[in-house]
Amino acid sequence: MSVSFRVLARDEKTHARQGVLQTRHGKVDTPVFMPVGTAGTVKAMPHEFLEDLASQIFLANTYHLYLRPGEQVIGSQGGLHRFMSWKGPILTDSGGYQVFSHRSLRKITEEGVEFRSHLDGATHFFSPEKSIQVQQTFGADIIMMFDECTPYPVSEREAKESMRRSMRWAQRCKEVHDSEGAALFGIVQGSVFLPLRRESVERLCEINLPGLALGGLGVGEPRLLMYELIADLEGLMPQDKPRYLMGVGTPLDLLFCVKQGMDMFDCVLPTRNARNGTLFTSVGRIRIKNTCYRYDEGPLDPHCGCLVCKRYSRSYLRHLFVSGEIVSSILNTYHNLYFYLDFMEKIRQSIALNSLTEFEGRFRERYTESA
Amino acid sequence: MSVSFRVLARDEKTHARQGVLQTRHGKVDTPVFMPVGTAGTVKAMPHEFLEDLASQIFLANTYHLYLRPGEQVIGSQGGLHRFMSWKGPILTDSGGYQVFSHRSLRKITEEGVEFRSHLDGATHFFSPEKSIQVQQTFGADIIMMFDECTPYPVSEREAKESMRRSMRWAQRCKEVHDSEGAALFGIVQGSVFLPLRRESVERLCEINLPGLALGGLGVGEPRLLMYELIADLEGLMPQDKPRYLMGVGTPLDLLFCVKQGMDMFDCVLPTRNARNGTLFTSVGRIRIKNTCYRYDEGPLDPHCGCLVCKRYSRSYLRHLFVSGEIVSSILNTYHNLYFYLDFMEKIRQSIALNSLTEFEGRFRERYTESA
Repeated sequence: MSVSFRVLARDEKTHARQGVLQTRHGKVDTPVFMPVGTAGTVKAMPHEFLEDLASQIFLANTYHLYLRPGEQVIGSQGGLHRFMSWKGPILTDSGGYQVFSHRSLRKITEEGVEFRSHLDGATHFFSPEKSIQVQQTFGADIIMMFDECTPYPVSEREAKESMRRSMRWAQRCKEVHDSEGAALFGIVQGSVFLPLRRESVERLCEINLPGLALGGLGVGEPRLLMYELIADLEGLMPQDKPRYLMGVGTPLDLLFCVKQGMDMFDCVLPTRNARNGTLFTSVGRIRIKNTCYRYDEGPLDPHCGCLVCKRYSRSYLRHLFVSGEIVSSILNTYHNLYFYLDFMEKIRQSIALNSLTEFEGRFRERYTESA
Repeated sequence: MSVSFRVLARDEKTHARQGVLQTRHGKVDTPVFMPVGTAGTVKAMPHEFLEDLASQIFLANTYHLYLRPGEQVIGSQGGLHRFMSWKGPILTDSGGYQVFSHRSLRKITEEGVEFRSHLDGATHFFSPEKSIQVQQTFGADIIMMFDECTPYPVSEREAKESMRRSMRWAQRCKEVHDSEGAALFGIVQGSVFLPLRRESVERLCEINLPGLALGGLGVGEPRLLMYELIADLEGLMPQDKPRYLMGVGTPLDLLFCVKQGMDMFDCVLPTRNARNGTLFTSVGRIRIKNTCYRYDEGPLDPHCGCLVCKRYSRSYLRHLFVSGEIVSSILNTYHNLYFYLDFMEKIRQSIALNSLTEFEGRFRERYTESA
């Protein structure tokens, strides 16, 4: 097994666990937030800054890297780690999410999906086997099964069909997967239907994969429905394997889901918001372009210890953003990732001290998440 | 006097000098290359990286900062140093270059220039007095007189008229300048006409300013003509004051002009080229997007010691550029500035060792500057 997972502490009042995921390229302390590095780089973050932030693992998108620079370029250099010059753990997604959500979609069959590149319109074909082969060429530490990310809303009948096909694809992924290589994680589908989700978990447990992800959430369904499902699934998912909630979410989403026993998260929110000038602070999100910051000499967040908050004023950050300076994206991304990573670090400490509820109380005293 | 300049060493075979310019915010070793920080930030370079590069001083553009964020924002915070959180020396230009070169120009009179903002079309008026007042509000260590950057080509009659007006403006700048504050540098004009240049130098010497710049060069005139003028001006400019060649140039331009006794340079070339994917290396400029780098695992420049060359491959840098990633601009800018700053450092060392000609020989063995 190329990853091992150990739960080190459990919070008594919730289902939260604090653990460690050991990979071939180092350990990952969980619960973990994984920044998104779509094209083999976290946008606006040189690796040097990611290392400064002690970010342990990031997610790269197979779809994007497959189209550019392509398997051959990355493969000829022995994989993503060497290509990017990144020594730590990497997780790649399967490409499924992009293939299904881009308008480039051509045709889904039992065999796989034909799609068009968003770059040049060329036709490509992804199957479970192809996705695993590409991901293995990329050489990430954790790779994901090829699944259909069921859209929302969807009828129960369609959701069942889609989930069952994904589960057949999971089996095919497992069959071609090199068990000496990356750890292959399964993805639970079934939309908002608990019986389908349960069936999907059971099916993936039979296939026996070293980690389970929840897919197809945060795709437009009401947030409370997502919360309910995650709470219900907690009892159904194996306790001894890492649980990864894909593509979610806000700080309060993360906190809620940690309390439901989720261990891993990825989301474009902190990085994309940063580039759009929306910054996470201890009181909530702020839009740095607002006129009220024009003369504001104070730090972005007086409770933040990051280099941006220690050095720069809101007035300067606003100026950089309004002027469209690249440095605005860099500093904003640095701060937002610091916020997310620091938040997860405090969550891990609180679980270890059995005081997650108290942490949440203190956090919510100041923090308001606007819709 | 708020700057002092000392020549520490002279190269015997050329007019090159190695010196130190002491400012209120620290020393600057000369000959120096000053990166351009148009809007109060060197594009794509967080201050942390500039400090890492040991960049001692940079140039900020008065025109841009006057329009955005404006005098009031910077003034209310006590100046640029505090606004930007930059502890080292800063030089501001007078705004003249932008006012005259933008199409926003409205009307030139003896009093000053009326122009339109490129941002919102609003009408503004810059006079020598206004420029000095704005620059003093910004609080840079070195400020520049308000001059007309005479365009090329131009008749001798027009060049004379323009130069003489600039010299009258120099006197007005001096009169309103707070001599306890920033150091006010003069700017030699006169286009490509040596008698006019000589007259301009003489006039500025009478006004007695602590530094002289050459303006209106690198504006389209043949390079050899510029070289000739600079060589001729060497003997005419005071030996005991820093000499600043504005807006020039390539590495070989810098080397030539250092040999003609120039001490200070600024240019957008390394930073703008970086963002366009043109990189300076020990063999000359390369275009990183070229297909030949697709599989190239070697460093950008095997003779460069910068963090980009020590860590990343040409293949990865090409991928980042082709993918339009912000990180491409960051890494490319870092490398190009390292190249320029390291080049100047080697020039300073060679002057101190009285071996500039030998350094030039070794440099030119590898380096070719394409047109």
